[in-house]
Amino acid sequence: MYKSTTELKVRYAETDQMGVVHHSNYYVYFEAAREDFIAGIGMRYADMESIGIMMPLVETQCKYIEGARYGDEIQIETKLEELSPVKVQLHYEAVRKNDGKVLAKGHTVQTFVDSERFKIINLKKAFPDIWERFESLK
Amino acid sequence: MYKSTTELKVRYAETDQMGVVHHSNYYVYFEAAREDFIAGIGMRYADMESIGIMMPLVETQCKYIEGARYGDEIQIETKLEELSPVKVQLHYEAVRKNDGKVLAKGHTVQTFVDSERFKIINLKKAFPDIWERFESLK
Amino acid sequence: MYKSTTELKVRYAETDQMGVVHHSNYYVYFEAAREDFIAGIGMRYADMESIGIMMPLVETQCKYIEGARYGDEIQIETKLEELSPVKVQLHYEAVRKNDGKVLAKGHTVQTFVDSERFKIINLKKAFPDIWERFESLK
Amino acid sequence: MYKSTTELKVRYAETDQMGVVHHSNYYVYFEAAREDFIAGIGMRYADMESIGIMMPLVETQCKYIEGARYGDEIQIETKLEELSPVKVQLHYEAVRKNDGKVLAKGHTVQTFVDSERFKIINLKKAFPDIWERFESLK
Repeated sequence: MYKSTTELKVRYAETDQMGVVHHSNYYVYFEAAREDFIAGIGMRYADMESIGIMMPLVETQCKYIEGARYGDEIQIETKLEELSPVKVQLHYEAVRKNDGKVLAKGHTVQTFVDSERFKIINLKKAFPDIWERFESLK
Repeated sequence: MYKSTTELKVRYAETDQMGVVHHSNYYVYFEAAREDFIAGIGMRYADMESIGIMMPLVETQCKYIEGARYGDEIQIETKLEELSPVKVQLHYEAVRKNDGKVLAKGHTVQTFVDSERFKIINLKKAFPDIWERFESLK
Repeated sequence: MYKSTTELKVRYAETDQMGVVHHSNYYVYFEAAREDFIAGIGMRYADMESIGIMMPLVETQCKYIEGARYGDEIQIETKLEELSPVKVQLHYEAVRKNDGKVLAKGHTVQTFVDSERFKIINLKKAFPDIWERFESLK
Repeated sequence: MYKSTTELKVRYAETDQMGVVHHSNYYVYFEAAREDFIAGIGMRYADMESIGIMMPLVETQCKYIEGARYGDEIQIETKLEELSPVKVQLHYEAVRKNDGKVLAKGHTVQTFVDSERFKIINLKKAFPDIWERFESLK
């Protein structure tokens, strides 16, 4: 099974007065991780948009296990959790590098959308070659 | 059933290059709504902390239905979805005021924690009066 | 001299681990204040764009005097500091409402730009009626 | 003259509806650059705090020349612009790596403060060894 790995370092601006990363920033981290994951099918978002496919988020979720702190180096592993012709669900796990602690786990759901009319498309029928690339990540 | 209502206006800085509010900001909106909801039990977070209770987030989730735009006036309704002696789940619904469209729905889960030792507590046993206030919101 | 007043409340997500508002957020506050100021000439940004004028930021500056804290209610007074046919400088002063302390002072410089070709324009010549509205704010 | 170099990549969440990086985020970039610069005296902020020195920001400023876009790789060069026993001014220049265009230039002013009483200190007298390290960066 394909997994992508993304590394980042907690910025001061991302902390809140509890002294840990504000919970909303994990979604920003997941977004960076998602970009790296999509690169795994040999494409960038910009490439997909240029052929007419957009992948808007329809759901995000995160469980918080341990608070990340300023300066922490974090590694995020991303994998495909569910795939259908109309949507894809990715799973993320954020781990602190220096002690291996799992900080957070989450998922996101994206639909496949026609970038002209902004309607949901059946990726398998409309873009069979892209569909196969996604299938290969399972 | 108790519901709190929070109003806010989308800031320019909250948009992204898709021209809509970046998905991570809904969690910032929910946080403002949560503060108003907690005020419904006649307390503020600061008050709870001063008597020894903290309520760290352990899960957040959001479904995105329609993108909010710069300048949109948004109303968020918050209600209690689940309550146990160790945790509370709140539900949020964000609606655009000018056309009544539902923009997003989400929930958050918070545990009750001893602010000294940072261990989960049984609110019903440890703070029966606060517990009753939460129960009254169901 | 025309001054606009903007009120806002510090959000939890805007604090950092020092327990005060992260310095970058004052620029987000000034942006909200700027929108209210522009309304003083009877227009919104969207209106200006629709007739072909954009006002990109070319400089921002802020002096920090006292740290704002979570929940603080802040009032921002905005006034016109300098005006020329090609640019406008606004000045901002952020004051905490409960004790009247000045928290920060800053300014921003914006140029007048043709929204089609994205070139600087001479507002006085190109849009004399809009120019007069800005002059009336001095 | 000592210069530090910091590299980063524009995140999607950092863009706004103009399709470029929101101006407030340059201050977040400068903060990451500042951390790297301070490392040039062989210390981290945490080390300085542990011996009793804090360096709160009292002013930030930025001129915007060209808008950075999503995915752009940016290099920030940081150098010491002014130094006195009570404060230090750093200068930042952000350049887009793929075309060498200067995106923004800015500075920040920090005072030296006693971390116990939060009063301004004369670094040269109070911590002559740390003062020498700063002087060596000129």
